[in-house]
Amino acid sequence: MNIIDWNALDADAQARALTRPAQAVAAQTRAAVEALIGQVREGGDAALRDITARLDGVALERFEVSEAEFAAAEQAVPAELRIAMQQAAERIDTYHRAGMAQPYSVETAPGVVCGKVVRAIARVGLYVPAGSAPLPSTALMLGVPAKLAGCRQVVLCTPPRRDGTADPAVLVAARLTGVHRVYKIGGAQAIAAMAWGTATVPSCDKLFGPGNAYVTEAKQQVAQAGAAAIDMPAGPSEVLVIADAGANPAFVAADLLSQAEHGPDSQVLLLSDDAALIAAVRDEVERQVARLPREAIARQALAASLLVQVASIEQAFSISNRYAPEHLILALRQPRDWLERVEAAGSVFLGDYTPEALGDYCSGTNHVLPTAGAARAYSGVSVASFQNQISVQAASAQGIAGIGPCALVMARAEGLDAHANAVALRLEVAQ
Amino acid sequence: MNIIDWNALDADAQARALTRPAQAVAAQTRAAVEALIGQVREGGDAALRDITARLDGVALERFEVSEAEFAAAEQAVPAELRIAMQQAAERIDTYHRAGMAQPYSVETAPGVVCGKVVRAIARVGLYVPAGSAPLPSTALMLGVPAKLAGCRQVVLCTPPRRDGTADPAVLVAARLTGVHRVYKIGGAQAIAAMAWGTATVPSCDKLFGPGNAYVTEAKQQVAQAGAAAIDMPAGPSEVLVIADAGANPAFVAADLLSQAEHGPDSQVLLLSDDAALIAAVRDEVERQVARLPREAIARQALAASLLVQVASIEQAFSISNRYAPEHLILALRQPRDWLERVEAAGSVFLGDYTPEALGDYCSGTNHVLPTAGAARAYSGVSVASFQNQISVQAASAQGIAGIGPCALVMARAEGLDAHANAVALRLEVAQ
Repeated sequence: MNIIDWNALDADAQARALTRPAQAVAAQTRAAVEALIGQVREGGDAALRDITARLDGVALERFEVSEAEFAAAEQAVPAELRIAMQQAAERIDTYHRAGMAQPYSVETAPGVVCGKVVRAIARVGLYVPAGSAPLPSTALMLGVPAKLAGCRQVVLCTPPRRDGTADPAVLVAARLTGVHRVYKIGGAQAIAAMAWGTATVPSCDKLFGPGNAYVTEAKQQVAQAGAAAIDMPAGPSEVLVIADAGANPAFVAADLLSQAEHGPDSQVLLLSDDAALIAAVRDEVERQVARLPREAIARQALAASLLVQVASIEQAFSISNRYAPEHLILALRQPRDWLERVEAAGSVFLGDYTPEALGDYCSGTNHVLPTAGAARAYSGVSVASFQNQISVQAASAQGIAGIGPCALVMARAEGLDAHANAVALRLEVAQ
Repeated sequence: MNIIDWNALDADAQARALTRPAQAVAAQTRAAVEALIGQVREGGDAALRDITARLDGVALERFEVSEAEFAAAEQAVPAELRIAMQQAAERIDTYHRAGMAQPYSVETAPGVVCGKVVRAIARVGLYVPAGSAPLPSTALMLGVPAKLAGCRQVVLCTPPRRDGTADPAVLVAARLTGVHRVYKIGGAQAIAAMAWGTATVPSCDKLFGPGNAYVTEAKQQVAQAGAAAIDMPAGPSEVLVIADAGANPAFVAADLLSQAEHGPDSQVLLLSDDAALIAAVRDEVERQVARLPREAIARQALAASLLVQVASIEQAFSISNRYAPEHLILALRQPRDWLERVEAAGSVFLGDYTPEALGDYCSGTNHVLPTAGAARAYSGVSVASFQNQISVQAASAQGIAGIGPCALVMARAEGLDAHANAVALRLEVAQ
């Protein structure tokens, strides 16, 4: 891994150090996704069959997972995994439930009551990737808040395997969260199907979940077309660790590697004010990476990653806020005292015993988080992501008598006479 | 206005009745906006000067509003309007403050504490239109929640007038909410300037506010490019009124017209189970529209609008939920009893004395709301729109000893060994 001294860099070099590996969507990807979306909109299920045969190498007559397939999945998943997923789902439920938005109401003037009601988004679509590794944990992270929100229609798409089945752990995870409509469709074609609907896949108001470059681009395209809203722009995963002299180099190295193994375009950064810790982490990374089954992927990610010597922990936070990492690990003594300094991040992990992997699976927090600096203006998935907040107001005759004149003056100043008239007609009666 | 009987229509005709006037962005608009954005990114302030001379017909050396201009605006705005805006700002503050997200924390397992902290988005950009009518009310609707959120950098763009000044009421409204950095830049060029920044306009993480087709398209393009997040896709304004036999036809007509006067592409719908009420509203609309200064605009909007006879108020709600109106007026007896039926809408107005104009100006609720059916999956602007919620977790040694094994099982099932290793290393010490 490359070690740099932040304060030896000029402003341009500092900016380059914080630049993510090129995220530009290839024109080729964009065009391919456009073509796939066009085919699904035009050809519906028949197009989905063609695309699935071509890209997933399997001829599927029926996309929806049957009762028999769910039953087979229950048999196929080891009890140990089933129990772990059940426990994870319970903690995800506990955490998400505690943070749910509540309706409220306030009298803003005598006789004028304003508030908000919370309503589930009616029809949502979840995408669970299953490329190099199927991710049942993602089914939990999307299914639990969808259920808590009370969404009326929840559908889940996940790619079929070569034998035409879906990953059994994903199916069991979906069922654990109450999701019963699962379709074996992957990639951009799944996103198009859920956005516009086909004869068998119902259309959705909002789509959620991570995916590869095609899925991500497809989500952007359906959002741009106004066909469905999306949870957030997603991209390759990343972690930033801030560590002090007291941190455990083996732990820090393990955390960097657990991000690096996600994919060759994952990015990991360590910021520390302690040169000895940085050197020790570098040695530990070298030691641990050699033992990983996904060593090749991790090494590619590490090549674009940095160990950064900073002047102080304060400076580390200022760099971190500028970078706005998806995951931020504070390997610091008294980490909670530093929390106030965090301005932009997706999810924060405090102290030596809170590896990112806990949040990825079972601390209870969500692992669908903003990447590529989007944490500056987006939050991770929560129950609120599956709900709308609708404002509600009620004025009595007394109420409009009190605030109506204010509206009249403003409407006339804006030259909107019909607005003024709608108020004036009531004032004639109300006063 | 056209009267239709919902239950006399077949499914296709019903779908057509709920179709908004064509919202397809002309390829020409898209290309024009792309060109404007390209010019601003390339040429910065010099490009802004060229574009402003060409499109706004004014040669501006300096875009930022000076202290002298703010002072002149204070003089130019009548005391009555200033007081009305002040009162409106106070009620907007009361309503928005009461609904602010709070941090929370919950123990999801012994020794595992998970929660959320709330942080202001650091740099936000507000757009206040000033085309056919400058909208100081919009400056209040964006400025108040930005201030409550605590955004560090708030900039506001609004188009210059022919004489090179900004609308004084917009300036006074901006100041009322604590916004001091106002730039006289309009249209797509303003959106580009705030997204990427120029020598004088600072770049922003998220952009807010309504605008014409160029502004709306520019917001979509900067969001798509990942340069800045946006509040929501915006479009022409719309209202849906559900009225029973007891409603006041003059009030309902006035409400329909106050939406219709916004623009020729505004849409208004009345749903009622009472034929006599529908006929009376039609007559009242005809009577009132003739007296409006913006009669021509309103008549264009009315041509695409409908008075719909439904079988029951229950049916009206089912149609409304399908349409997902920006504004929903319930001109019903005991309107609050019906509120539970509302599934998708931007803002709801209860009863005969709550015209939409109250919410547009001064009930306290926000008037920047999802249009074109986006209310199915988007909420109106609130303080939360200007904030991020960051998840935070802390596990003690006891905590990871308890839940670590669960993470281990799931990580191994997903084939992510480095994730498992990050947990296993801690378990060696923690147990």
